[in-house]
Amino acid sequence: MTDTDLPSLSATERTRHRRLREQGSPYRADLDAILAAGFLCHLGVVVDGSVMVVPTVYGADERTLYVHGSVAGRSLADAPGTDVCVTVTHMDGLVLARSVFEHGVNYRSAIIRGVPRLVRDADEKLEGLRLLTEQAAPGQWDYARRPSRKELAATALLALSLEEASVKTSSGPPEDGESADAALGLWAGELPLHTRWGRPVADPLLPADVRPPAHIADRSGEWLL
Amino acid sequence: MTDTDLPSLSATERTRHRRLREQGSPYRADLDAILAAGFLCHLGVVVDGSVMVVPTVYGADERTLYVHGSVAGRSLADAPGTDVCVTVTHMDGLVLARSVFEHGVNYRSAIIRGVPRLVRDADEKLEGLRLLTEQAAPGQWDYARRPSRKELAATALLALSLEEASVKTSSGPPEDGESADAALGLWAGELPLHTRWGRPVADPLLPADVRPPAHIADRSGEWLL
Repeated sequence: MTDTDLPSLSATERTRHRRLREQGSPYRADLDAILAAGFLCHLGVVVDGSVMVVPTVYGADERTLYVHGSVAGRSLADAPGTDVCVTVTHMDGLVLARSVFEHGVNYRSAIIRGVPRLVRDADEKLEGLRLLTEQAAPGQWDYARRPSRKELAATALLALSLEEASVKTSSGPPEDGESADAALGLWAGELPLHTRWGRPVADPLLPADVRPPAHIADRSGEWLL
Repeated sequence: MTDTDLPSLSATERTRHRRLREQGSPYRADLDAILAAGFLCHLGVVVDGSVMVVPTVYGADERTLYVHGSVAGRSLADAPGTDVCVTVTHMDGLVLARSVFEHGVNYRSAIIRGVPRLVRDADEKLEGLRLLTEQAAPGQWDYARRPSRKELAATALLALSLEEASVKTSSGPPEDGESADAALGLWAGELPLHTRWGRPVADPLLPADVRPPAHIADRSGEWLL
């Protein structure tokens, strides 16, 4: 995208891109598209003085990223005001160049940094969990039994502003097609990687006549990435 | 695995598992299997006092994880002795329960923590890059042009001991099949997620008669996860 009227991400010194090969995007729409394309993130947090990176699930509205924070929650409850980093990465394929040096990965990634809040308000927690659930499994919030007050209290949810975010993507062929290495006569290009949903597997404890609802069954074969 | 003669991961206080629902594994073979199943990791490092989580590629031998460390390398060069965390996650699918509370993700993840070294020895760097390349694209190290002395110097590679590692996996159906929620009559089970290689896309600059080598072409349709 090149339209300069598009809402921009506010880059701070530490989210500005330093490497030239990868492309940063200053556009909010690119951040939204990356977040919309997945549901798994990696949450980095300092626990007992050491960095810890844990996989977890997220949901988002226009301003806030909600992250399921069981591990980090414990630490953040002890140390409110702790800086975190949430990274969402979609791997699109391998870049196979003539030289090993020019090999790489095509990907889209979003990095959101800031000081999260532990969500304590019951209404906000419920809405955050709705966003998380619908991000991974659209339709499940209205289908499954919603959290009880007790379950809500037992869930750690972090809210992180989307204000400090950066987007980095890499796509396209390798960059050594016009270098001296082109004369080597080697094949070069991309090997794409695709992720898609399989067929639903019923819980063995389920009565045989209970069929998956359309919002689950119709997903089979759909591409996630 | 239950064989107690298998080599164990040495859990330290901070890699011990605290949650019951997910399963930790003390076996080195499970760590190796998770590392072998992918090539992308998330590296967490403290940069300028804040946590940063960046996607990057890795390779491993029996004792050491090698990580391409352009971003972290800069920081680690300034501050040797910095603690990092490398997390490898394979997403296997969604766990769809009767209640939202019991929803989850089936996954396999490995977390490796410690103080990495910036690899400076040229021979070790070359071997580390070979492991990285072969991890993502087996066969490419012998096919593509290997790094020159200059390219080697321009590459930041981190070496992290596999000594402090932990494995966590989640698999199988949801856990509320025998709860009161079973009476709701809702469908429950797993929605698997599969990742596989697509067809090679040639660099547009490539002469039409250059075909992909077998180690690339044969990968098409192969499952990564």
